[in-house]
Amino acid sequence: MSLEVFLKAIQTEIASTKYGESPVELYEPIEYLMSLGGKKMRPLLTVMATNIFVDDWQKSVKPALGVEVFHNFTLMHDDIMDAAPLRRGKPTVHEKWNENVAILSGDVMLVCAYELMTAVDDKIFKHVIRRFNRTAAEVCEGQQWDMNFATRNDVTEDEYINMIRLKTSVLLGFALELGGLIAEAGEEATQLLYDFGTNIGIGFQLKDDILDVYGDPEKFGKQVGGDIIENKKTWLLLKALKIGKGTAQEAELQAWIYAKEFDKDEKVKAVRAIYDALNIRQLAEQKMNAFFDKGLADLEKLNASAERKQPLIELTKQLIERES
Amino acid sequence: MSLEVFLKAIQTEIASTKYGESPVELYEPIEYLMSLGGKKMRPLLTVMATNIFVDDWQKSVKPALGVEVFHNFTLMHDDIMDAAPLRRGKPTVHEKWNENVAILSGDVMLVCAYELMTAVDDKIFKHVIRRFNRTAAEVCEGQQWDMNFATRNDVTEDEYINMIRLKTSVLLGFALELGGLIAEAGEEATQLLYDFGTNIGIGFQLKDDILDVYGDPEKFGKQVGGDIIENKKTWLLLKALKIGKGTAQEAELQAWIYAKEFDKDEKVKAVRAIYDALNIRQLAEQKMNAFFDKGLADLEKLNASAERKQPLIELTKQLIERES
Repeated sequence: MSLEVFLKAIQTEIASTKYGESPVELYEPIEYLMSLGGKKMRPLLTVMATNIFVDDWQKSVKPALGVEVFHNFTLMHDDIMDAAPLRRGKPTVHEKWNENVAILSGDVMLVCAYELMTAVDDKIFKHVIRRFNRTAAEVCEGQQWDMNFATRNDVTEDEYINMIRLKTSVLLGFALELGGLIAEAGEEATQLLYDFGTNIGIGFQLKDDILDVYGDPEKFGKQVGGDIIENKKTWLLLKALKIGKGTAQEAELQAWIYAKEFDKDEKVKAVRAIYDALNIRQLAEQKMNAFFDKGLADLEKLNASAERKQPLIELTKQLIERES
Repeated sequence: MSLEVFLKAIQTEIASTKYGESPVELYEPIEYLMSLGGKKMRPLLTVMATNIFVDDWQKSVKPALGVEVFHNFTLMHDDIMDAAPLRRGKPTVHEKWNENVAILSGDVMLVCAYELMTAVDDKIFKHVIRRFNRTAAEVCEGQQWDMNFATRNDVTEDEYINMIRLKTSVLLGFALELGGLIAEAGEEATQLLYDFGTNIGIGFQLKDDILDVYGDPEKFGKQVGGDIIENKKTWLLLKALKIGKGTAQEAELQAWIYAKEFDKDEKVKAVRAIYDALNIRQLAEQKMNAFFDKGLADLEKLNASAERKQPLIELTKQLIERES
C-alpha cells in the first residue's frame, strides 16, 4: 500500500467527520483547525503500523483520526498559552474567535478524540484508553515543562530531551503503538513500535531546532532564526551555553540573549556564527542521528517482512530528509 | 447505608488519590481545587444509585470520583472564562497561579477523569465512555450557550431551560446512570435514573436562581442578589421581561439593566420589588417544583424497594430544602 492511499483515506475521514452541531462557536473552530492542513503524520503512523501486520488497515482510520484530533486540541490550547497569532499561516482560534472559544472548543475537541477511540474493538478498548490517558497526561506535562523552561536559566540538555520526549515524541510513539494494538501485534511488537516512535520523534524535534537556525529560507516556510530571536531554549542554545562556558562566545551569546533592542537579522547572524564557532550544528546533527538510528533499529527488530515495513520506512526517511 | 458512610468513602478516596507528580504546576491545582470542599453531590449520586441494586457499592467509588474530577475540571476552565476571582470562598486557580496553569491543569484533569473511569468492568467500559463523552460534550455546549446568552436580548425560557439542562443537569443524570450501569441495573432502570437526575438537576438550578434573589443572607453563603447586579439572564429575569412586556415594570427593569452606575443594594431591592409585583417568585417555584415532582416520579417508577431508594430520596430532599 502506498503512502498516498493511506493519506487519502485519512483525509476522506476528516472531511466526513462531524464533531457536533451547535452552538457553532464550539464546533466550527474544530473543523477550522482540522482543515488547515499539516502532514497528518500521526494518523499516517497509526494506519501504517496496523498495515504492517494485517491487510485490513481501514479499521485503524477512525482511531488514527482520534490521535490527530488530540494533537490539534493541544495546538489549540498551546496557541493560547503561547499567545501565538498564526498556526500554519492562518489566524489561531483564539485570534479568529476569542480566548474563551479556544478554551472551550479545545475541551470538547479532547472529548471528540476519546469518542473517535471508541472505534477500536471492545477487547482492546480499555488498554487503548489507559495508554491514551498516560500519553495525553505526558503531553500536558511536556507543555508545562516547556513553559517552565522559558523563565529558568539552569535547564540541562537531559531536561530538554525529556521535555521534547513528553511534549511531542510520546504521541508519535502512541500513534504507532495504537496501530499495533489494533492489529493485535502482541506486546513486544507494540513496544518496539512505541520506542521507534519516541526515538524518531525526539530526532524530528532536534531536526526542527536545527532547521530553525540552518534551514534554507526558500524552503523552510517559517522565518529562519525565529527561535534565536525569541531566545527559545533549544538544544542548540543549551549546548552552546554549556560547551562555551567561560569563553568569549558565551559572553557574546549572553549579551544577545539579554539585549532588549536589536536588529533581528543581525542577532540571527551573530548567534549562528557563535554556534558555528562552537561546532553546534555538527553536535546537534550527531545527537539527532543517534535518535534516528535508535528508532530505525527498533523498527528493524520488529518481526515483520521488509516489504510490510517499507511504507513506514519511506515516510520516516521523508521526514528525516525534509527541509521544512 | 447512610449518607455519611457514602460521603466518608468518597472523601477517603479523594484524600488518597494522586493525580500525578511533576511538574507541580500541573498537579497541585488539581489537588487544591478538589480539596476546597463542596457537597460532593455527583459522586454521592453515583454510589447511591449503585447501592439501590447491589450491596457492593464500593466498586462505584473510583468512577464516582471520576465524575467529581470532571465537574471540577469544568469549574477550573469556567472560572477562567467567567474571570471569577473566587471559588468556594478561595482564590480560583487562574488567580492563585495563572491562566496558562489553569488551562493546562484543567486539561490534564479531564484526562484524570477518564482514567478514573477505567475502574469500571471491561464489559461496560465502552458504553460508559460513550455516555461520558456525550455528557461531557453537552456540558461544554451548555457553557457555550450560557456565554452566548450574555450578549443576546432574545433568550427564551425554553432556551434557558435547555442551557441549564446541558450545563448542569446532564452530569447529575450521568452520575446516577453510571451508578446504575455499574450495578448492571438494566436499560429501563438506568434511563429512569438518568431522567431523575436531569429533572432534579434543572430543579436545583432554578432553586439557585430563586435563592440568589430570595435567599436568607445569613444562610446563603454568597452575596444575595449577585445575579441581579450582573444582569445574569436567569429564569426569573427572563420570565419578568416576558410577562411584564409593555408594562411600567418592564421599563423599570430595563432601566436597571442598562444602568451603568448604581447602588448595588438599591438595584437588588428594586429588581426584587419588580419580581414581587409580577409574582415571579411563585412562578419560579411552580416551575422548580414541577421538575422536582417529575424527577421524584421517575425515581418512584424505578423497580426497587423503598428501603433501597431511601438514602437517595433523603439526599434529594436535603438538596431540595437547602438554603444555600
